[in-house]
Amino acid sequence: MPPLYPVIMAGGSGTRFWPLSRQRTPKQVLAILGPSSLLQDTVDRIRGLAPTEQVRIATNARQFKVIAPQLPELSPANFLLEPSPRNTAPCIGLAAVHIRKRDPDGIMLVLPSDHIVRDVKAFQEAVRRGVEVVERHDPLVTFGIRPDRPETGYGYIQYVPSQEELPAGVHRVKAFAEKPNLQTAQMFLQSGDFYWNSGMFIWRASRILQEMEEHLPEHYHQLVEIERAIGKPNYQRILNNRYRRLRAISIDYGVMEVSRTPIFMLAGEFGWNDVGSWDELYRIASKGKDGNVAVGDTVALDSHNNYIYSPSRLTAVIGMDDVLIVNTPNATLICPRSRAQDVKAVVDKLRQERKDKYL
Amino acid sequence: MPPLYPVIMAGGSGTRFWPLSRQRTPKQVLAILGPSSLLQDTVDRIRGLAPTEQVRIATNARQFKVIAPQLPELSPANFLLEPSPRNTAPCIGLAAVHIRKRDPDGIMLVLPSDHIVRDVKAFQEAVRRGVEVVERHDPLVTFGIRPDRPETGYGYIQYVPSQEELPAGVHRVKAFAEKPNLQTAQMFLQSGDFYWNSGMFIWRASRILQEMEEHLPEHYHQLVEIERAIGKPNYQRILNNRYRRLRAISIDYGVMEVSRTPIFMLAGEFGWNDVGSWDELYRIASKGKDGNVAVGDTVALDSHNNYIYSPSRLTAVIGMDDVLIVNTPNATLICPRSRAQDVKAVVDKLRQERKDKYL
Repeated sequence: MPPLYPVIMAGGSGTRFWPLSRQRTPKQVLAILGPSSLLQDTVDRIRGLAPTEQVRIATNARQFKVIAPQLPELSPANFLLEPSPRNTAPCIGLAAVHIRKRDPDGIMLVLPSDHIVRDVKAFQEAVRRGVEVVERHDPLVTFGIRPDRPETGYGYIQYVPSQEELPAGVHRVKAFAEKPNLQTAQMFLQSGDFYWNSGMFIWRASRILQEMEEHLPEHYHQLVEIERAIGKPNYQRILNNRYRRLRAISIDYGVMEVSRTPIFMLAGEFGWNDVGSWDELYRIASKGKDGNVAVGDTVALDSHNNYIYSPSRLTAVIGMDDVLIVNTPNATLICPRSRAQDVKAVVDKLRQERKDKYL
Repeated sequence: MPPLYPVIMAGGSGTRFWPLSRQRTPKQVLAILGPSSLLQDTVDRIRGLAPTEQVRIATNARQFKVIAPQLPELSPANFLLEPSPRNTAPCIGLAAVHIRKRDPDGIMLVLPSDHIVRDVKAFQEAVRRGVEVVERHDPLVTFGIRPDRPETGYGYIQYVPSQEELPAGVHRVKAFAEKPNLQTAQMFLQSGDFYWNSGMFIWRASRILQEMEEHLPEHYHQLVEIERAIGKPNYQRILNNRYRRLRAISIDYGVMEVSRTPIFMLAGEFGWNDVGSWDELYRIASKGKDGNVAVGDTVALDSHNNYIYSPSRLTAVIGMDDVLIVNTPNATLICPRSRAQDVKAVVDKLRQERKDKYL
């Protein structure tokens, strides 16, 4: 078995599922699609790929309290606590120095904690192909997802069909594209050369740290200081002190888009979805009568294609179409499904008004 | 001072303000427009017209428990308890026998408990003119309201402008019209001869009982049996026994539309509104930013002309127009304002499904 270290990034506190997701209950700890949370599903998804003691959950102290009880099979040693949120590059860097210190050949499988994957077997096969490529070529590997619609909410990866001897579904990356407008997204879809950037990666810890040394040298310098302190009494003090200095930046922007090392794309065909908004959740949920999705006690008269989440009380609708209704104990959201992404604006307004009890 | 007995009918359990109004908290006990309930406002409105001990609140045993604490200035003797709901003719008949027994010349001012009147002074002046007409001519007197829109939710009263010596604003009634369709309502509005039937009346108790003897003889027979028992030990038993036998029928249908006695209409110009639906409440409420009416903690982005009632939690809306949102502790209603009258259909459905906790 190769030295694989799954790193699940669970520190996010997204606002797109407000009012269900809150600072203390971010999306990844919610059971929005079944009996278990997205984080629990993510941990289940890697079962068998690596020994449990090699799994790392990257999160922060506040969320640790919510997350740890969801993962009773893990021990405190499985968690990496970020002193403060700094986006994905510092988070991945922190995991990488821990893994490199323990195992200089360690391979990281970097996964967000709030995506869904329908076909776990196909996912694990893809991971195994990715590991094989990493062991043979030591590249950066990213998971691309074949688009089925001109989505403007994702970044895209342009690839060149493989001419080398690479495992099936592994291709060279030509370029990364930021979130496109609709016209560009339609062109990407038609061309067939563009896959969605899923934010999942495989690489050696040493490889990504070399990349950071080249492209994010300030970050690398601090990370090495942290690495030196691992296992020593002053670790926590050094971590707190150094991590806070790191500029928040994503791994895509900080490394992937500027790297000169070969990047390979694994074409993922495993029913991936990032469940990025309430509307996306509506799209993938199974519909009831009149196209409505209803969670909890609801009455819907002359109403079609609504998403109604109301586990703790009755929600009655009359003559409403294509609307999103999220009814939680202390806050209710109502908007057209097409405006689900504007939920952030409500959260911003509540922040401005310091209405912390709703955040 | 004439022997005036205000009779406030407070036994209704309407469904049009669900989910705020419930079986135990009907519309009249709700403070939907200010600090006091519609019933309390109704009692305030008659202050000075008659001694408090002549006021009668007609209701039933269940609602008495909710109503009595709202009216601490009244004593149990002010309440008439109907054993079961039988619409307005039996209710008015019961009040009439009580008043006739006490005062053979007693004049009744019959008022619903859930209307609003903006100009209390003008209302009291109208009542005094009505009493004057009753003392002089002993007719049936009904309050008509000059229509300002082709409302299809009310009955109408056709009048003939007075040629006799009657106080200002008092006219003879020519006919009663049931709730019209829109075309007819528009004709009524243009003609100028039609006023809204407000359901408020003035007459001698003895006069309305004579009418019931003629047009509702079965009812009259039972009511006389009840009248005989007033003040006797067997009153409650007789009341329970006889009242239940009465067929439910409205005073309009049972008496007003068939009476051969002169009926006068008092043209009411006192800012009357029956607040018959959530949409009506929206229309008369003072609007905030973007035409929204908001009660409680709300956030409204790109949203116009909504009625949002949310006293116990946050309600956030994005991109919603002309919608009614009523957020109560255990039930939430969402519908276009134009469908406010369909709230009844939700209540019917909940009844069918025996979801009593929401009724």
